[in-house]
Amino acid sequence: MSAETFLTDFHHVAAIGATPAGGVDRQAATPEDKEMRDWFAAFAAERGWPVRVDPIGNMFALVEWRPGADCVLVGSHLDSQPLGGRFDGAYGVIAALHAADRLARRVAAGEEAPKYNLAVVDWFNEEGGRFAPSIMGSSVFAGLMDEQAMLRVTDLDGVSVAQALDAIGYRGADARPTPVAYAEIHIEQGRVLEREGIALGAVDHSWYTQKLDVEVLGEQSHTGATAMADRRDALVAAARVIGLVHDVTGEFEPESIVSSVGHLTLEPNSPIVVPRRVHLVADLRASSPAIVERARALLLDRIAAVAREHRLTIDVRDFDVRPVQSFPERSLQITEKVAAGLGVGVRRINTMAGHDSVPMNRIVPALMMFIPSIDGVSHCERELTDDAQMTVGVDALTEATWELLGGGLDEAAEQRAAREGTR
Amino acid sequence: MSAETFLTDFHHVAAIGATPAGGVDRQAATPEDKEMRDWFAAFAAERGWPVRVDPIGNMFALVEWRPGADCVLVGSHLDSQPLGGRFDGAYGVIAALHAADRLARRVAAGEEAPKYNLAVVDWFNEEGGRFAPSIMGSSVFAGLMDEQAMLRVTDLDGVSVAQALDAIGYRGADARPTPVAYAEIHIEQGRVLEREGIALGAVDHSWYTQKLDVEVLGEQSHTGATAMADRRDALVAAARVIGLVHDVTGEFEPESIVSSVGHLTLEPNSPIVVPRRVHLVADLRASSPAIVERARALLLDRIAAVAREHRLTIDVRDFDVRPVQSFPERSLQITEKVAAGLGVGVRRINTMAGHDSVPMNRIVPALMMFIPSIDGVSHCERELTDDAQMTVGVDALTEATWELLGGGLDEAAEQRAAREGTR
Repeated sequence: MSAETFLTDFHHVAAIGATPAGGVDRQAATPEDKEMRDWFAAFAAERGWPVRVDPIGNMFALVEWRPGADCVLVGSHLDSQPLGGRFDGAYGVIAALHAADRLARRVAAGEEAPKYNLAVVDWFNEEGGRFAPSIMGSSVFAGLMDEQAMLRVTDLDGVSVAQALDAIGYRGADARPTPVAYAEIHIEQGRVLEREGIALGAVDHSWYTQKLDVEVLGEQSHTGATAMADRRDALVAAARVIGLVHDVTGEFEPESIVSSVGHLTLEPNSPIVVPRRVHLVADLRASSPAIVERARALLLDRIAAVAREHRLTIDVRDFDVRPVQSFPERSLQITEKVAAGLGVGVRRINTMAGHDSVPMNRIVPALMMFIPSIDGVSHCERELTDDAQMTVGVDALTEATWELLGGGLDEAAEQRAAREGTR
Repeated sequence: MSAETFLTDFHHVAAIGATPAGGVDRQAATPEDKEMRDWFAAFAAERGWPVRVDPIGNMFALVEWRPGADCVLVGSHLDSQPLGGRFDGAYGVIAALHAADRLARRVAAGEEAPKYNLAVVDWFNEEGGRFAPSIMGSSVFAGLMDEQAMLRVTDLDGVSVAQALDAIGYRGADARPTPVAYAEIHIEQGRVLEREGIALGAVDHSWYTQKLDVEVLGEQSHTGATAMADRRDALVAAARVIGLVHDVTGEFEPESIVSSVGHLTLEPNSPIVVPRRVHLVADLRASSPAIVERARALLLDRIAAVAREHRLTIDVRDFDVRPVQSFPERSLQITEKVAAGLGVGVRRINTMAGHDSVPMNRIVPALMMFIPSIDGVSHCERELTDDAQMTVGVDALTEATWELLGGGLDEAAEQRAAREGTR
């Protein structure tokens, strides 16, 4: 299919769950997510590709050339953040569907069928905005998260993943395809490619990330009648913690670490009551584990000091620790070869964000590509990538997938198996 | 009725909406509030007192000795904060019902009927935890808040005051009694009476209070992929504002000012998204307007500096400004006379908290009494006052009400009318 056909589809899909400010809101297992999935299923049905849905809501469209053969998985996720952008995730799935279509036509037109079959995947709940943790569907697929435990995770309204998937009719019972390799294309969500004017990023490593679950337990009292000295205000202490989490990044090399607090609940949240409890989640990410570990140690000391000073309890718990992942050297070379073939620039690049490719890379050799993000912004409505930049990506994903279908990462898989066998 | 009868009723009512930690949760127009109101109505019905409910949900039980005469209003509020204490408000209403019962028996036993009739009142939504602003029912009664606007106020779930009152069957259409004076007894919610070992406080002034509505507008972005320097994090800036609101009190005389942030909402509130918007409410209270005004001016300057530093917008709006109210000298003298008659200690005292007596004092002379709060804590489950302290209060309220029924505040009302007439 042509670049125009891709762009028509992309901009059509961007209208699903569209927000007035140019973004989208289609969180996991909402009616908007269902509409995305229905569109995905219709795209496959028009081409005669069977669709499979597994018990955690991952969807697969199968392009089978060799019955019974294993497959190359290509895809990303169709869910978005609340008031998110229209590129994050959806671009990768639509690009994968169009790459699959082009390759199916290539074989139908006489090219020899490749060694492996192809499956395009929409992973469930990559964003984690409604159901934590994020990157849920691919992590269950990779055996890194427990399927039953994830089905029991609830959103803020108490609705479980299982209930939400049932409600949109996408809690499946199909067997999962057996992958030999995985490919994904995504917007960079940073400024590196844009700043350097480069069309493609070959992702070499993911950042080390971890979260801190912080609970501040003070004492509820009257905002008018309680003297300042008698208060144990959970929100004042939590505000100090938020400041510490932000400021600690200033003690490291610029751009070597990021931190944030994105989630916070306050109790009782009444204008005239001194708060008794704040729960918040801090997120730490750096290029190396040592940086995160050092920042974490500084924060634990300083948070303990805040608790003493404010005469209250602050419990801090580590969770969602994700080690640095290296993508295979061979997958970087494939991206570089494809870029050379298309005559576009390429560079190796880290990913600070998590992606479905990271858990997939734990079980099969994975290839991850980036295209530029204008202004580097993401997870917001003004997320933007040019049409021309997107179509270069579709071309690159098509050729990289063809390489993988031909066994391009078989040697990497063998090396991995040998390495794991000797451990 | 005896002290024991009062205590039996008080501890019975404390079981309505009781929480495991010894508090209560019965916010305005919830099923628990309805249960309180039903108990109030049954208490009146047993004695043949008519009950009236006005359009904003205030309830009145009428003790009529002289058909057509104006009345003395005595009461407080039966709603509580979320996870609040069992004394705040409910004590004053139950004490008023028992005072009314004793006085009704006194007249039935042969004492001459007083000059005025009596109405015991349960004011709607004093706490403001579910529907802001607080002190709603008495403020509407006093003409300080617009009834139609208040009926349209919604809670966090979008339920309006009108809908919530309809749901519990307490949106009435009855005419309001015409008051000549108002009396209320309440726990102090501070430590002054306890520290000095004094049984009764004669409230002389209310504090000057105001709220600041603060909206921080940053930009949503990805917590992993966005460099720290590129972020405009609404929560980091809001945390600075919370710190400023707290710290500013340290620049004034100890115990001359209190401040807090009790309400905060965060958007989008996702663990891996840099927040785009924080809305919070800051509360400033001081013994004099000049202190609040100075603190407010300092805060506005400093908040503007935070906005510049973080390259985002912070809108600050004044609301719910409540001037210092002085209770009539004559009402203080009545409380002092009653205390002398009972042989218990009394002192004059400020109220830092708002009470229904404050708007009532704008339209009729009001008398407000305090009894001690153990540890000075309130708006929390461990709020406590001894049984013996409570029964002294019931005795005092009974005698003070008798004074008011006999015209004890008539002269204060005439002075007020003359003063207002000459303005």
